Amino acid sequence: MAGTAQIGVTGLAVMGRNLARNFARHGYAVAVHNRTASRTRDLVEQFGHEGTFVPAETAEEFVAALERPRRLVVMVKAGAPTDAVIDEFAPLLEPGDMIIDGGNAHFADTRRREAALRERGLHFVGTGISGGEEGALNGPSIMPGGSEESYASLGPMLETISAKADDGSPCCTHIGADGAGHFVKMVHNGIEYADMQLIAEAYDLLRQGAGYDPARIAEVFRDWNAGRLDSYLIEITAEVLAHIDAATGQPFVDVVLDQAEQKGTGRWTVQIALDLGVPVNGIAEAVFARSLSGHAGQRAVGRGLAGPAPVALPADEAALFADQVEQALYASKVVSYTQGFHQLQAAGEEYDWTLDLGAIAGIWRGGCIIRAAFLDRITAAYAKDPALPSLLADEQFAAELGAAQNGWRTVVATAARLGIPAPGFATALAYYDALRAPRLPAALTQGQRDFFGAHTYHRVDRDGVFHTDWSGDRAETQQS
Amino acid sequence: MAGTAQIGVTGLAVMGRNLARNFARHGYAVAVHNRTASRTRDLVEQFGHEGTFVPAETAEEFVAALERPRRLVVMVKAGAPTDAVIDEFAPLLEPGDMIIDGGNAHFADTRRREAALRERGLHFVGTGISGGEEGALNGPSIMPGGSEESYASLGPMLETISAKADDGSPCCTHIGADGAGHFVKMVHNGIEYADMQLIAEAYDLLRQGAGYDPARIAEVFRDWNAGRLDSYLIEITAEVLAHIDAATGQPFVDVVLDQAEQKGTGRWTVQIALDLGVPVNGIAEAVFARSLSGHAGQRAVGRGLAGPAPVALPADEAALFADQVEQALYASKVVSYTQGFHQLQAAGEEYDWTLDLGAIAGIWRGGCIIRAAFLDRITAAYAKDPALPSLLADEQFAAELGAAQNGWRTVVATAARLGIPAPGFATALAYYDALRAPRLPAALTQGQRDFFGAHTYHRVDRDGVFHTDWSGDRAETQQS
Repeated sequence: MAGTAQIGVTGLAVMGRNLARNFARHGYAVAVHNRTASRTRDLVEQFGHEGTFVPAETAEEFVAALERPRRLVVMVKAGAPTDAVIDEFAPLLEPGDMIIDGGNAHFADTRRREAALRERGLHFVGTGISGGEEGALNGPSIMPGGSEESYASLGPMLETISAKADDGSPCCTHIGADGAGHFVKMVHNGIEYADMQLIAEAYDLLRQGAGYDPARIAEVFRDWNAGRLDSYLIEITAEVLAHIDAATGQPFVDVVLDQAEQKGTGRWTVQIALDLGVPVNGIAEAVFARSLSGHAGQRAVGRGLAGPAPVALPADEAALFADQVEQALYASKVVSYTQGFHQLQAAGEEYDWTLDLGAIAGIWRGGCIIRAAFLDRITAAYAKDPALPSLLADEQFAAELGAAQNGWRTVVATAARLGIPAPGFATALAYYDALRAPRLPAALTQGQRDFFGAHTYHRVDRDGVFHTDWSGDRAETQQS
Repeated sequence: MAGTAQIGVTGLAVMGRNLARNFARHGYAVAVHNRTASRTRDLVEQFGHEGTFVPAETAEEFVAALERPRRLVVMVKAGAPTDAVIDEFAPLLEPGDMIIDGGNAHFADTRRREAALRERGLHFVGTGISGGEEGALNGPSIMPGGSEESYASLGPMLETISAKADDGSPCCTHIGADGAGHFVKMVHNGIEYADMQLIAEAYDLLRQGAGYDPARIAEVFRDWNAGRLDSYLIEITAEVLAHIDAATGQPFVDVVLDQAEQKGTGRWTVQIALDLGVPVNGIAEAVFARSLSGHAGQRAVGRGLAGPAPVALPADEAALFADQVEQALYASKVVSYTQGFHQLQAAGEEYDWTLDLGAIAGIWRGGCIIRAAFLDRITAAYAKDPALPSLLADEQFAAELGAAQNGWRTVVATAARLGIPAPGFATALAYYDALRAPRLPAALTQGQRDFFGAHTYHRVDRDGVFHTDWSGDRAETQQS
């Protein structure tokens, strides 16, 4: 079997195993390898009938099983384990071969690894893969970075195993050089955090504000899923809310501990947005909301704080309110995508990636957690104007937000009045209103900075850098 | 003059020069050194009459001028220049000598440098110095990290030149080991960002909402400065708002370009809070608000977005509204300090620093930008209970927020309704309400995560980790 496998997968935990099966089911001969050889044997035993697997016990056997140029997919934990596997395999490879990292690496690590392997004539393809175990097996959304040369050889295979959007197009495209794939996957996850936070707030407002029970809220989400909010996350929200806990007969959502956990990618998205100078308020509020929920000690203290009496709206107002929550949710979602795409745009400039933002929205339409009908609209907006400075510059989005703004404002105001936390809705509205503002109070901030730190300021009426002698005669001098 | 100077300052740009003068004015003999010797000569020529300066042209002369153990203050740019100076001087020093970095270093760099120099028997004291040029000369707030041994030798001198609080106590205390001083200075700056953002929002609401002009708003701030908001930043806000631009006769704040700039410390504070899992929403919103203000292209787009008609409140409501803005400002400020002190507390645990949070509030009472009467209250809260899990657990703060909440809610709701961005007020209120909540929608988030990623969840009614078979029969299994 030497040199016959078109692709190899090393690291056969559930993600790696399912990805290998996905390749095999699509007719590719797949070399499989795992540090513990029993996993390799298990895979072939259980799933050998699904296609052609070439099991390899050693790194050398694995490499020898692959056709040239070799395509070697690494599915191990991000960080040191990934470096260890690269260090093990790179010396066995030849110029033109490809190492594909399908884990959740930090894009800066991917850039470093790509540069190091490029020096040795090898391609390193950091690839975002979204959709979890299920997606890996049946079609994930795939976001490969790396060189164009590597994509020419690898891309068709990835497109084949990827999810397909409703129009049949593959949910995989070449994102850009070096770390671009992992960067885009990271922002995808950040947007997912924001989406989930907005849904959580909508649920909370319907529960505490409209006074609906989980079963009724599940129906509301089902309705929403038939409209412009049509998406995987809205769909599963209805499923989770409708679910009854067998042990207690209570709504499932009421027996789950209300402390949300997180892995690293939401946090990374915000940290890097800060470096890029891009406001991603929605993602930040989502990450912080999860952190806060887990601080049980502080929350125990907080329960003693005074608030308004917990009164839900009267029934006749509740139905109207539910509609307004839909408007707030949709508008806030558009804002959080606007922020996420702003981050992608800024990263493209910073790292010299030519990102096709419309194509990126396109490959998120299937396979991944944030798949949604709405993404077609983003693709269309960028198709109309590839240089769109902001999603909110798109006429249709602008018109929709204009139509939603009254309801959105009512929801934010009602949440404040009733004492229901809605940081995601509130920050999205504040972003919208700050963008709209002819003048921002940032002018005062600049005045203060000049006062206490001589940090200087610009003027609206002429060019130059100015400073006022605040502790002296308050005369203005031009600094440059 | 060999071996007679009690302290040395290298790097004689304005901060270093003023700090050297401050030491000299307090009777210390100060060795002074600068890469470009003309600066050293200028200092002695201009300010030699203020005290005893020992000018040194070379590194060797500088080191020789200092008494043992040597205390060598480095006042150069953070990053590579600081490393370069350390590399230059360290070989000339002897065990027990101290290098004091008074720049705005990242605390992780300070930890690295401290560890490296400790290996060589040298003390490295990363020191936050707040108060700008003016403070450096007349008394800054000083936040030294490093070893207790170094503080025993250096601390009394720093306390002497520091600002003094109203009760006469020095605004300098030993913060903790290695990078603790720079960490605390960083969080100080982060809190300063939040304070400034809240003030900017208050101004904007009084301007657009209450319909007041800058002169009138200056009066409002002057009034506030006589109450519980008494602070340097409120005081200078009144000064800036009352200032008239000589060139145009317009209010100064109207001729300043409304694009706020920033250096790195606000951003760092948020990035590290994310690593620590601490929600610092107020600081994040402040950093993002500055970023947003600077994105002129996106704002140009945004001006076309639909909003409510820009109508100010009727005059009779405006006065009441101004009072409510004071309540919102005070309450939001308490929340943002709560978040900042939570970050300090978490950092103490993470980095093994024994931080005296009350003492830290105490040394911010003078010299620095966020100096405020209100800090006494924080010191008192920690004096009453050093293990206070949150500032909001303090009875008095809790009572004040309880009394302010109605006004605060009205302000957030009014801002949403009128279309005035108030992200700082809104996120602070959402934090307050999330802390109060008996149940958070984080339970739904956990349910979703289990649905799409088998991430498991905890239950409220029994220990263990659980998973529901969402794609199968929806039975629950205990994972551990």
